[in-house]
Amino acid sequence: MDFKVHVIDVEAGLNVVVLDDDDAKMLDVGVSDRVKIKFGKNEAVALVDLARKGKHGEAMLFSDTAAKIGVSEEDTISVEAAQRPASLDYVRKKLDGGILADAEVKAIITDLMNEELSAAELAAFIAGVYTRGMNTEEVAALTNAIYETGDKLEFKNGPVVSEHSIGGVAGDRVSMIIVPTMASLGIKIPKTCTRAISSASGTADTLEVLCPVSLSMDQIKEVVTKTNGCLVWGGAVNMAVADDKLIKIRHPLRLDPEELLLSSILAKKKAEGAKTVLLDIPCGRGSKVENIEKARELAHKFQTMGSHLEMQVDCIISDGTEPVMNYIGPALEAREVLRTLEGASSGLLAEKACLMSGVLLHMVRGISKEEGYRIARYELSSGKALAKFKEIIGAQGGDPKIKSEDIKPGKFSSVVKATAEGRVHHIDNKSISRVCRAAGAPADKGAGMVLKVSVGQQIKEGAELYELCSSSKEKLDFALQQAKHFEVVEVEQIILDII
Amino acid sequence: MDFKVHVIDVEAGLNVVVLDDDDAKMLDVGVSDRVKIKFGKNEAVALVDLARKGKHGEAMLFSDTAAKIGVSEEDTISVEAAQRPASLDYVRKKLDGGILADAEVKAIITDLMNEELSAAELAAFIAGVYTRGMNTEEVAALTNAIYETGDKLEFKNGPVVSEHSIGGVAGDRVSMIIVPTMASLGIKIPKTCTRAISSASGTADTLEVLCPVSLSMDQIKEVVTKTNGCLVWGGAVNMAVADDKLIKIRHPLRLDPEELLLSSILAKKKAEGAKTVLLDIPCGRGSKVENIEKARELAHKFQTMGSHLEMQVDCIISDGTEPVMNYIGPALEAREVLRTLEGASSGLLAEKACLMSGVLLHMVRGISKEEGYRIARYELSSGKALAKFKEIIGAQGGDPKIKSEDIKPGKFSSVVKATAEGRVHHIDNKSISRVCRAAGAPADKGAGMVLKVSVGQQIKEGAELYELCSSSKEKLDFALQQAKHFEVVEVEQIILDII
Repeated sequence: MDFKVHVIDVEAGLNVVVLDDDDAKMLDVGVSDRVKIKFGKNEAVALVDLARKGKHGEAMLFSDTAAKIGVSEEDTISVEAAQRPASLDYVRKKLDGGILADAEVKAIITDLMNEELSAAELAAFIAGVYTRGMNTEEVAALTNAIYETGDKLEFKNGPVVSEHSIGGVAGDRVSMIIVPTMASLGIKIPKTCTRAISSASGTADTLEVLCPVSLSMDQIKEVVTKTNGCLVWGGAVNMAVADDKLIKIRHPLRLDPEELLLSSILAKKKAEGAKTVLLDIPCGRGSKVENIEKARELAHKFQTMGSHLEMQVDCIISDGTEPVMNYIGPALEAREVLRTLEGASSGLLAEKACLMSGVLLHMVRGISKEEGYRIARYELSSGKALAKFKEIIGAQGGDPKIKSEDIKPGKFSSVVKATAEGRVHHIDNKSISRVCRAAGAPADKGAGMVLKVSVGQQIKEGAELYELCSSSKEKLDFALQQAKHFEVVEVEQIILDII
Repeated sequence: MDFKVHVIDVEAGLNVVVLDDDDAKMLDVGVSDRVKIKFGKNEAVALVDLARKGKHGEAMLFSDTAAKIGVSEEDTISVEAAQRPASLDYVRKKLDGGILADAEVKAIITDLMNEELSAAELAAFIAGVYTRGMNTEEVAALTNAIYETGDKLEFKNGPVVSEHSIGGVAGDRVSMIIVPTMASLGIKIPKTCTRAISSASGTADTLEVLCPVSLSMDQIKEVVTKTNGCLVWGGAVNMAVADDKLIKIRHPLRLDPEELLLSSILAKKKAEGAKTVLLDIPCGRGSKVENIEKARELAHKFQTMGSHLEMQVDCIISDGTEPVMNYIGPALEAREVLRTLEGASSGLLAEKACLMSGVLLHMVRGISKEEGYRIARYELSSGKALAKFKEIIGAQGGDPKIKSEDIKPGKFSSVVKATAEGRVHHIDNKSISRVCRAAGAPADKGAGMVLKVSVGQQIKEGAELYELCSSSKEKLDFALQQAKHFEVVEVEQIILDII
C-alpha cells in the first residue's frame, strides 16, 4: 500500500511508522508489528504504531527514519507487512533457559544495530540474560558481536595495553596518571573513557577541563602514533556501538547482568586494539561489588573471558568504600591530577596509579610487580609522566603549557560543618555524587567538593567536613539543601544522649 | 524549570516529554529518567526523551499527555526531576526470583495504569514472571489488582455465570449458543468476548454481523437485566483495563506466561460479576496447549486460583486440533450459528455448546451433567435458544427478525482443489487464519472459507478442499496465493512416487 509521508520532527532512535487504524487493518498489522517501508531503492523495517486520530493514507515517520530512507514531507512511500525477525526467537530461547549459538547471539546484535528490535524486545533479552545467565561461549560470542559493530583501532610495533575500572568510586582518576606513565615508557595505551552517568564526573568530563576529548578515529590514531597514548571519550567514536544501545536500555531498568558488563568492557578494550588489559574491581560498601568474594568471582570470569578472546586480562581488587581523591568534580579533579603529576601532591591517587602501572609493566615486560611499581614511581617523580601528559594534552588540541594553578573551581562556595563531635566512620560515594550533581556537576565543570576529613579521624562539633563549589549561587544552595538528605560524611557519635 | 510546550500530534500511549539535550543536562535527567510535568493544578509523571535537534526551552509532548494535563501549543509547563517509582524495585525483585507481596503486585499495576512504566520496564516485568513464575498468592494478588483497574458488573437475584475458551480454534463460536441457552433458562450470563488478534474472526467480530457489540456499562446492565444475557466486545468497556495494557506488550513479544493468562481471564470473569465460570482448554496440534497433560495442569491451576478468588471455576479439555465449524470468517460463522439455532444444522458446534451448557447447569443447579446436557439440547431443539438469541440481538441494537438466509458472504469466491489423491489427515487452524486474513477477515466481514472435507476422509485428485470468499477480488487472489504457502488441508498421499 502507498502512503503520503508526514515527518514528525523527533528522533525516535528506532524505526517507527504511525498509521491510521483502518489502514493498519487493511495491511493486517497491529501495534508493534513489523512493516517494510520503501522509497525508491531505499528500504527499512519499521515497527507499527497507531494514530487514533490518524489520517487515512498518511504514514507518519520520525525524522531519523525519514532521513534514513531519504523521504521528505508529502513524498509517497510503500508500506507492506514484514516478517518478524528470527532474533526474537533467540530472545525467547534465552528466556526459556536455552544456550544461544554464536550465530543466534550475532543475529540479535545485528537486528539491534538495524534498529529492528523495540525497546521492549531488547528489555526482554536483557531480562533473559539477567535471569538465565550466559556461559563463557555465549559471552565470548556476544563480546565479538558487539566488537564487530564498530570501528577498531589497530597498532603495529610493540604491545598495546589498556586498563579500566568497573567504576563507582568518586575521584578515581588513575587513568590520567597511568596513561602518561605507560606512554612515556614506550608502551601504547589508546584509552577510551566514559562520561559520568550518575556520578559527579567521569574521566572524560574531567579531562575535558584540559583538552578536547571528542576525537575522530583518525585523530586518535594520529595522537597515539605521536605520543603512544590518548584519553578520549568513547561516546564520540563508533567503537562497540551495540553496547551503547544496550546500555540505553539497561540504565533505566538498572539491570546489569554480569555477562553484559563483561562483554561491554571487553568489546571496548578489544576495539582499542589492546591485547593486555588490567581491570580494577573496586569493592565494599557503596561500590558496585559488595564484597571481596564477589569481586574475586568476577575477576575470575574476566580472566576466563580474556583467554577466550585471546587477550591477557588481569584484575586488581581495590577498596571501593571511599573516594580516591579528596577533590571531586571536573575542575577540582583535573587540578589535583595535575598537582599529582607536578609532584605537589602524593595521596592515594598516585599510589594506586603506580601500583596499577606496575601490574601492567609486569604483564607486558615480564618483570616483577614491585619492579614495575618502582619504574612507575620514577616516571612520576622525574616529571616524565607530566611531560608526556602535557604532550598528550597538546596532541588532543589542548594547551600543553597548562599548570595546576591555572584551573579554577566554581566561584561560589560554602563549607559544611559537623553538627556534633565524633569519629568519621564512612565517606559515601553515592551521597558525594548526589550532592555534587545538585551543585551542577558534571555539566558545570566548576562544581564539586573538597573533602576535609578522612575515615577514622576524630572531629569536634563545628569541624569542617567538606567545601562545596559551584558556578551558580542557586545550584550551590540546592546542593546545600540536598546535603541535608544525603550524608556525605558519616560521623559516629560517642555520646548519643545525656539524660 | 519552565518550558514552552510543542504538541506532537501522535498518541504515545505513555507519558513522554521530549527535551533539548542541554535542558535535560540542566535538569540532570537522561533518556528514560522520570520528570514531573505541571500545568496549573494538573500534573503527570513522564519519561524523558532527548531531541538531538531540540529547541532550548521547548518541551515536546505527545497529544495524549498534553490532553491529560490540559496544555495546548505554546503554553508553559514546569518540569522537574522525579523519583523512580518503587514498582521498578518490585520488577527487579521478581527478576531476582523473589516472591512479591500483595502491595508490591498492586504497585506495579497502579503505576502501569498511571502510565509511569515504559514498555521496556513492563517487558522486564513480563519476562520476570515468565522466567521466575508466580505462586498462587501472587497470581491472586495480580488478578485482584487487574480486576480493580476497571469497571465491574454486579447483579443481584440469582446466579451469574460465564464461560471462556483460551482460544486458538477456528470457528469456535459456542458462546453464541451457550449464552442464549443459559439466558433462556433464567441464568444470568453477561459475556464479554474478544476480537480476533491473529485468527480469522473473534466472537465479537462474528456477532457484529448481527448487532452492535460495543456497548457501555449502562447499556450492558440494561440488556442483561432485560434478557439475562449479552455478548459484547470486552475492548469497548473499561473492565480489567490493566490487562489490555499488559497484552499490548505481551503480544509482540509472544510471551504468554501462564500466570498472566490465568489472571487475565479470571480478572475479566470477575469483572463480569460471575461466581460460576466454565473454561474451555482446547489442546492438541495447532492449538495453544500441546497435549492433555499440560491442559490438565493448567485446568488444575485455574481451579486453585478460582478458590482463592471465591469463584467456582471448572474446566473442560476439548480437542483443539480441528475447527469447530466448517464455516470460518465473520459472516459465514454468523450464518452457521443462526442455522444451528434455527435447527437447520447440527454439527460439532451444537454438540460442544450443549455439552458445555450441561456442565454449567451442573455447576449452578447441582443436577448431573447428562441431565444438564438434555436440558440444553431441548432449549436448542425447541427454538427457545433461538428466540432468546434474537431477543438479545434486539436488545443490543440489532434486527431481532434476522434469519440465516439474510447473511451473505463476500461476492468473490474460488474453490481450492486437491492436487493429488489421498487421505485428509489434518486441517490446520493456523493456516486457516493466515489464508482467511489474507482474504480480508476479520475487517472484511464477508471474507472467509467453507471447508468441504473432514479429517480421515479419502479424496481423489481434484476434489474440492475448501471455498474461499472475499468482498475484494484482489484480496481473494492474494489469499489464493497464500494458500500455496499455508497448507489448510493436509492430504496424506498413499503412493508417494512410481519409479
